[in-house]
Amino acid sequence: MSFAVGVVGASGYTGAELLRLLAGHPGLEPVVATSREFAGQDIASVYPNLVAYAGRPYDEVNPDALTGLDLVFLALPHGASMEFGAKLVEAGVRVVDLSADFRLEDPQAYPEWFGKPHAAPEWLGKWIYGLPELHRQQIAGAQAVANPGCYPTAALLALAPLIAGHLIDPATIVVNAASGVSGAGRGLNPGMHFAHIDANYKAYMVTGHKHTPEIEQELGHLAGEPVHVTFVPHLVPMARGLLATCVASLAAGADPESVGTAGAAHYATEPFVRATAAPPETKFTLGSNACHVWATADARTGRAIAIAAIDNLGKGAAGQAIQNANLMLGLPETLGLSAEGVYP
Amino acid sequence: MSFAVGVVGASGYTGAELLRLLAGHPGLEPVVATSREFAGQDIASVYPNLVAYAGRPYDEVNPDALTGLDLVFLALPHGASMEFGAKLVEAGVRVVDLSADFRLEDPQAYPEWFGKPHAAPEWLGKWIYGLPELHRQQIAGAQAVANPGCYPTAALLALAPLIAGHLIDPATIVVNAASGVSGAGRGLNPGMHFAHIDANYKAYMVTGHKHTPEIEQELGHLAGEPVHVTFVPHLVPMARGLLATCVASLAAGADPESVGTAGAAHYATEPFVRATAAPPETKFTLGSNACHVWATADARTGRAIAIAAIDNLGKGAAGQAIQNANLMLGLPETLGLSAEGVYP
Amino acid sequence: MSFAVGVVGASGYTGAELLRLLAGHPGLEPVVATSREFAGQDIASVYPNLVAYAGRPYDEVNPDALTGLDLVFLALPHGASMEFGAKLVEAGVRVVDLSADFRLEDPQAYPEWFGKPHAAPEWLGKWIYGLPELHRQQIAGAQAVANPGCYPTAALLALAPLIAGHLIDPATIVVNAASGVSGAGRGLNPGMHFAHIDANYKAYMVTGHKHTPEIEQELGHLAGEPVHVTFVPHLVPMARGLLATCVASLAAGADPESVGTAGAAHYATEPFVRATAAPPETKFTLGSNACHVWATADARTGRAIAIAAIDNLGKGAAGQAIQNANLMLGLPETLGLSAEGVYP
Amino acid sequence: MSFAVGVVGASGYTGAELLRLLAGHPGLEPVVATSREFAGQDIASVYPNLVAYAGRPYDEVNPDALTGLDLVFLALPHGASMEFGAKLVEAGVRVVDLSADFRLEDPQAYPEWFGKPHAAPEWLGKWIYGLPELHRQQIAGAQAVANPGCYPTAALLALAPLIAGHLIDPATIVVNAASGVSGAGRGLNPGMHFAHIDANYKAYMVTGHKHTPEIEQELGHLAGEPVHVTFVPHLVPMARGLLATCVASLAAGADPESVGTAGAAHYATEPFVRATAAPPETKFTLGSNACHVWATADARTGRAIAIAAIDNLGKGAAGQAIQNANLMLGLPETLGLSAEGVYP
Repeated sequence: MSFAVGVVGASGYTGAELLRLLAGHPGLEPVVATSREFAGQDIASVYPNLVAYAGRPYDEVNPDALTGLDLVFLALPHGASMEFGAKLVEAGVRVVDLSADFRLEDPQAYPEWFGKPHAAPEWLGKWIYGLPELHRQQIAGAQAVANPGCYPTAALLALAPLIAGHLIDPATIVVNAASGVSGAGRGLNPGMHFAHIDANYKAYMVTGHKHTPEIEQELGHLAGEPVHVTFVPHLVPMARGLLATCVASLAAGADPESVGTAGAAHYATEPFVRATAAPPETKFTLGSNACHVWATADARTGRAIAIAAIDNLGKGAAGQAIQNANLMLGLPETLGLSAEGVYP
Repeated sequence: MSFAVGVVGASGYTGAELLRLLAGHPGLEPVVATSREFAGQDIASVYPNLVAYAGRPYDEVNPDALTGLDLVFLALPHGASMEFGAKLVEAGVRVVDLSADFRLEDPQAYPEWFGKPHAAPEWLGKWIYGLPELHRQQIAGAQAVANPGCYPTAALLALAPLIAGHLIDPATIVVNAASGVSGAGRGLNPGMHFAHIDANYKAYMVTGHKHTPEIEQELGHLAGEPVHVTFVPHLVPMARGLLATCVASLAAGADPESVGTAGAAHYATEPFVRATAAPPETKFTLGSNACHVWATADARTGRAIAIAAIDNLGKGAAGQAIQNANLMLGLPETLGLSAEGVYP
Repeated sequence: MSFAVGVVGASGYTGAELLRLLAGHPGLEPVVATSREFAGQDIASVYPNLVAYAGRPYDEVNPDALTGLDLVFLALPHGASMEFGAKLVEAGVRVVDLSADFRLEDPQAYPEWFGKPHAAPEWLGKWIYGLPELHRQQIAGAQAVANPGCYPTAALLALAPLIAGHLIDPATIVVNAASGVSGAGRGLNPGMHFAHIDANYKAYMVTGHKHTPEIEQELGHLAGEPVHVTFVPHLVPMARGLLATCVASLAAGADPESVGTAGAAHYATEPFVRATAAPPETKFTLGSNACHVWATADARTGRAIAIAAIDNLGKGAAGQAIQNANLMLGLPETLGLSAEGVYP
Repeated sequence: MSFAVGVVGASGYTGAELLRLLAGHPGLEPVVATSREFAGQDIASVYPNLVAYAGRPYDEVNPDALTGLDLVFLALPHGASMEFGAKLVEAGVRVVDLSADFRLEDPQAYPEWFGKPHAAPEWLGKWIYGLPELHRQQIAGAQAVANPGCYPTAALLALAPLIAGHLIDPATIVVNAASGVSGAGRGLNPGMHFAHIDANYKAYMVTGHKHTPEIEQELGHLAGEPVHVTFVPHLVPMARGLLATCVASLAAGADPESVGTAGAAHYATEPFVRATAAPPETKFTLGSNACHVWATADARTGRAIAIAAIDNLGKGAAGQAIQNANLMLGLPETLGLSAEGVYP
């Protein structure tokens, strides 16, 4: 038996990755795949890697075609899911929204960080934040899941064991992270030109990245108190992959040894999160839904360093969305997903 | 039901890719995975991407442990499979050898190109050349299959439709090809240093690449006459991916229009070879078993250009080996394989 | 003493490379640097690498400001130099045009390859083709020089010694070449997105690249007879660098040994062209005006392979333009130029 | 007039970059260029980019040949300069040592961080730390200069304006930095294989990088008190380029506005350090001696972020060594150096 699902926005990088994963998923059937830009064009002509879709055109966005589906993935630009997602949920459809539109609970945080009012503020806080390692039980029964951002996924999975173990002071967290270019989407601007990015490395949106409030919200839940973080994202000359390097002061009385062992214990039964023996490398997660975590304490400076690596389009977007969909539909959580990265 | 298979040489790039594919293959169980260098070490510590093998050490090479298996993949350096492969076959084991050791039929060609005598010359010509698109029937009944080289796979799949259609003059073929670095294996030498390869492009082994006789042998079979080709390989600053650009004079009386349409007709029912509308790009095949082909005629110069793209570790090595194993064992040919590349 | 020069189109990649080279040139003073897109903006804000120009805005394009200059570099898109270049020359200004507009001598070739009539056909054949290694004497006395394309520069320098030595049959030349992405300019299209190009390799414009007639024209002069070539360009995931791999049948009676030694003899006194002991690699020319050439004969197939590597923005564009300007102005040919690539 | 200089260890990446820069330096003549590995081999056969050295073999290491020189650059592995450098200085030769051997003043810090005793501890503290922007006066009169590490150069230049302006609390500094691969030198290990590094990103030596004490020593001088930093280096898939992202709490009473403007004022007269309008990108410094700095305050979290970009082989090694040599010999500080990076 297979559930009928739709992908709205299936010609962006995240949408195309959803289609790739769905082509090999035995329990989900992508019966709708929309694209405003490419409606009517053969999917395999736009993404020649998607051989399974050869001969099939992208669909127009037609809300009526979506309401009968078992689940809809929204892979739209930030801001575009607000009204659309709310309506689908009101129509009784299960939705996994991959944008930032429903991730924040605090109605005041949205306009503060996104610079405009939310179109469906009554829904904020009612969507489940779809990080299964934090909210598996709620996702399993949920109709509406807000799929986490790529940076928050890595930062939260890196820090969760240390906060849960009271090993760090949440008030001191600095998150330096770096992502491959696909995280910025398929849109063109001079900063995305190959000749510019290749052999180049830089920080961007140094104090105002829109993933910041999302990191703070979930760290706050973990810590049981409001948390503010400094989050500095960087751009790496690679297409995929994301690493979050988190530094924080050791909590008073924390055992430095425990910092290094907390991850393995915390994630012992997780299918996709693995505590590695050496600092994680993004490439080992490429194309997969894996997250590799590692941490150490620096007794000399009294700080802990926790690092996580993911594929930003895998566990950081489309892979995690499939994981959430599996949970929402009662399928095995790992169905159609792999933890084995494509290496080298 | 699952067949028990072994991977000998499972710590090279090709062997590791076999393990990755076998982790997701429902019909093949990798019960043996040997490594001379890493025997006893956790597979996932050597290849952290191979999460499915965490806690499992590489095996010593033990011929006795292999003879009871349903099939053995030999992923050894060139020259190392000769004796070993022959013995396994004599012991009744099915073998897919990924080296060049059993690909040539002509006993005199081996020493000419490899500079040393063959250790089991009586076996040359008895192994089946494992390119399913050329030799599917023979592979299906075979006990011993010589998996093709990466360059020959691409060059042969690009040219086969044009030779079959008598569209080009086989005496005029020039193959310019380019490969990602993983094709050279995991071994270290100064030419493999990242700082050297990055942002660099060059030709290498300009007249003596060991894949040349293999290309000529199979083109000769297709053409029904001996064929000599000029084959110039290049190194591209990328880890995976291989493109063969083949140029040849149009055959007398050939219809130039047919050059562009021959591939689609020739490969209409093939699960992994697809004639693309635009010149193929290696990235669309990344991590998959796909081969994309394309051709055109240049009426102005009276030449045809035929191009094929593959992942050198996929259709060019491990993927094709799985495809051959499926055929040898009577499994569905596509089982455990994907034609959808990881993009971007 | 310093000559006053202008760069028209100084915000494209080629124009910016000219500005970079002029910043360190002791005999040329870039008193005008125009940009339609960025006029009025600080050059160093558009190109932060051009520190020497900090505080100086791009100029509007003002023809009057150019007529008093000693020399003008036109670094405009193809087609945009036709009228402008002709007028400057008529006004008595020395011009080095880096576009394809004045490279062809045959007035019929231009519309055939560029799909539109030439705006100043009376000038075709009167500009000197600015490859100093072929036309040094004419360049030295010239007022109007058409700077060669990047692919022709490499192909011609690779093949010139073999044609001069009657070692190959000019009717059989196949040029497979590959370039870094900057060769396509700063313009944006989906094919230039980093996520698309990275770890990707492909052929493009397989039979109709606009550099083809230019290669044929100059090879024809060298051979003393009309020459047609098959030219297949490829795109390499790197910002700079270009390699031409040329294959041709050995001429009847040619000594194969001579193929390998012809380059060193032919270029013995050239300051920027060097015959290398091993096949050239693009990276060794990065950022310089060097061209590395190498050739070999394959007695088995009766063919010669000749290879040349350049930086497409160096010897393939801006570096060569400076070299031409030095010659035109009577400066030492190597002034302000380097043959030492930035490596690694 | 030209000074006679020697490069000891001229076949490593740093040594080869020194040779490249010296080829274009009008005041320094590289009369000795030693290599243990390649002595007797043509320099241009080992580094084909170094065309200017074609026909000249690498020299054996002969101390007597060095004592008559005006200045010697030591580009040896860490640990190898200790005895050699001390002897040269005792013989009256000016020395710029590019290793870490003489950078630390505290004799106890060396064994603590390098795990072995120093061979010439009496010299520690007597060599001048060669960061001209901090110690120009001392360098000008110095006989022995310890050229800074690449990470310390970037971190110190990023932070110096903020510490000088009392804008940050030195006790809270976290330095996250990332470097291209050439920083690890030409040596081979599996971690340097192109196929491993390409499209990969990771942290390494997370708490024990040997540049840490050097950063702390110089920050301590700037702050007037001992400073401890958390320093986490990362490896970026690029050959050259280094970025230091430094985070620290704002000092009590610090004006956040001043954080952003401190760099431009601090470095107003520096020839190679430039405060940029946007966060620096490594590529704009490629191949040059430039350092780009930028800083901002995050009032929300009470922290400052200061970023610097360099070419690790330029301002981070060979370029800075030339700058120091110019100062030591009374030449113009910028002679033979460029602040214009090779872009794109």
